[in-house]
Amino acid sequence: MPRREFPQGVTADSISLRIGHPDPTTLNTSELRAAVASILTTPESYQALEYGAQQGVSSLIGYLVGRINREQGLSLQPDQLMLTTGSTGAVDMIARLHKGAGGSVIVEAPSYADTLHVFRDHGLPLYSVPTDEQGIDAGALLDLLERLKPSGAPLLLYTIPNFQNPSGVTLSESRRREILALARQYNVLIVEDDVYRDLYFDAAPPPSFLALADGVEVLQIGSFSKTLGPAFRLGWLAGSPDAIRRYVNCGTYDMGGGASPFSAHIITEYCRLGHWEPHIAALRERYRRRRDTLIVALRRSMPAGVSWIVPGGGYFVWVTLPPMVQASQVVAEAQARGVMISNGEWYFLDPQDGRQNLRLAFSFAPPEDIDRAIAILADVVTGVISIQ
Amino acid sequence: MPRREFPQGVTADSISLRIGHPDPTTLNTSELRAAVASILTTPESYQALEYGAQQGVSSLIGYLVGRINREQGLSLQPDQLMLTTGSTGAVDMIARLHKGAGGSVIVEAPSYADTLHVFRDHGLPLYSVPTDEQGIDAGALLDLLERLKPSGAPLLLYTIPNFQNPSGVTLSESRRREILALARQYNVLIVEDDVYRDLYFDAAPPPSFLALADGVEVLQIGSFSKTLGPAFRLGWLAGSPDAIRRYVNCGTYDMGGGASPFSAHIITEYCRLGHWEPHIAALRERYRRRRDTLIVALRRSMPAGVSWIVPGGGYFVWVTLPPMVQASQVVAEAQARGVMISNGEWYFLDPQDGRQNLRLAFSFAPPEDIDRAIAILADVVTGVISIQ
Repeated sequence: MPRREFPQGVTADSISLRIGHPDPTTLNTSELRAAVASILTTPESYQALEYGAQQGVSSLIGYLVGRINREQGLSLQPDQLMLTTGSTGAVDMIARLHKGAGGSVIVEAPSYADTLHVFRDHGLPLYSVPTDEQGIDAGALLDLLERLKPSGAPLLLYTIPNFQNPSGVTLSESRRREILALARQYNVLIVEDDVYRDLYFDAAPPPSFLALADGVEVLQIGSFSKTLGPAFRLGWLAGSPDAIRRYVNCGTYDMGGGASPFSAHIITEYCRLGHWEPHIAALRERYRRRRDTLIVALRRSMPAGVSWIVPGGGYFVWVTLPPMVQASQVVAEAQARGVMISNGEWYFLDPQDGRQNLRLAFSFAPPEDIDRAIAILADVVTGVISIQ
Repeated sequence: MPRREFPQGVTADSISLRIGHPDPTTLNTSELRAAVASILTTPESYQALEYGAQQGVSSLIGYLVGRINREQGLSLQPDQLMLTTGSTGAVDMIARLHKGAGGSVIVEAPSYADTLHVFRDHGLPLYSVPTDEQGIDAGALLDLLERLKPSGAPLLLYTIPNFQNPSGVTLSESRRREILALARQYNVLIVEDDVYRDLYFDAAPPPSFLALADGVEVLQIGSFSKTLGPAFRLGWLAGSPDAIRRYVNCGTYDMGGGASPFSAHIITEYCRLGHWEPHIAALRERYRRRRDTLIVALRRSMPAGVSWIVPGGGYFVWVTLPPMVQASQVVAEAQARGVMISNGEWYFLDPQDGRQNLRLAFSFAPPEDIDRAIAILADVVTGVISIQ
């Protein structure tokens, strides 16, 4: 079982609850190796190595459309989905087009730090809307929309509705309906980044925005990174035929011949052989155990004044420290004792808003490490509280 | 030997001199299959499937830096190169940063159509400078720089100096020196897209801009697409440490964990085993034969008034038709007879400038098909001339 931190060079004795990477021991399976070998043994194998179609490998598009329709109760057509260079590639294209239209972006507070980075790279004006244990505060969103209305800028709401990164929160169904109604009223494009959707531990998530909007008005992002391997750089984007056509006709996939064609051929074969569904089912069990280990350890050892949200799936647990305890100090002291965690400040437009928060990833480290790491972390927090 | 058009659905009887794809029969080699299999058999194999470092796989960076230093007479350090999602990924990042700085772009006339598409997606103002058989007209560049000077916008010159796409032209050494001097004088960032560099047929290309500038001031783009396989989506960007740091710290590779990590691990292993150099040497022979076949066929069958540039390497031959013959008509009639070629109009900011030009790719079709295609094409051109 690999223990070594990746990709940063941290000592072999450290435990990472910092990186939101899939469990490395789940990635290299015999089924995957068979798919890799298989695509290079047919007379058509050269197709897996050449430039591909801009929209992506059509049989994989067909597979994903069928799966989304089945699982989300939709009736998408193949022209409503394209492959992207991971969810990153989808966010990047959306950001570019939105910037070109002079738009602004609304994100959740907190939101995924790296997506904020991409939006900032594009120079998009960013606004955030507060969230609670049910997700986005619809009243606060209404206030923000009223405030932004006079600018006339096209608006985009970027949300991670299921098992959010970093908070682990799932947006409730009633909130989804309220937010979709607001989006329609104020003409806001909802972009739902749904890369954790399949990794539910208790119950399947509520209807997606795409399902509530019947396959139009909303853009939904998916990815193979969280279940099959980030290194493949393969995700997808689903939405209305018009929107997908616009993205398919972008220069990036024109020049590059679609998103990650070699990976797409491997994954096409892997899915065709029926390996993905049982793999996902096994991951649900695996990550549920890790979440449970983490939550039990927090309950056992964290001092009073510390709270956390129990996620229904995904990779992350969001911790709130007592008011006098700074996340930065806890992160530094935990690191000094070999435990890597994420500072909540990274996930807010104004870092100050996250100064009492920690994000703990339970995806990467094995349960025994999670257990040990939380004991150390609780000790660190207790120590910081005691010297206040 | 695959004959089927890819990725567009053209009939099996057609011959494509249109797509600038590598010869599909050269891609799936036993050496490549061994590299693919090898990276999934080690205890560290999970690293090939996880998120990677933003700069890319360090051993491949080391390999590429060593090779560039050896071949271009440079002394780059590893912090002067990063992996990118093909040359497309490099162009895309450069375009984004340049757009953010309020810049404009100067391209060659003609230039690579798909890169123009990427620049346009970013909303960058584009200007073009004429070229001849020695490449960019330095006098015309000076005039353009004088004309653009009052705007004060940061300028970027995008050039494909070797075996240009679409013209096949190689920029002469004296022109390179003149252009570098102008770039310094007018503070223009030179971006050399050098993806065909290794595929020379007669003599190695003149010193690169990066070499003439001693590893700074210039950005050089390379790719594995033209020799190993476009589907891997792996290229690189070399330049000053400051410039590379800026690009490494972009949100796209932050969020995605570097460019195409799975592909990068395969190619690292392939290169480590010493397979790339002999493969490139074999490709030089193969594509030289195809160029020769194409040129001999043109000489044999094209009517008077048609001219072409004999490229010293790369994938393309650029044809100029007599003034009264329209490329669009020739392209359509050739297609009706099963021969696919590219309309010169696609490669100019003003399509009218290419209405007497054709781009013929000799990379994809086997020599016997090239021979047959040129006979048909010559017949088409002769027919069009006769009815003027």
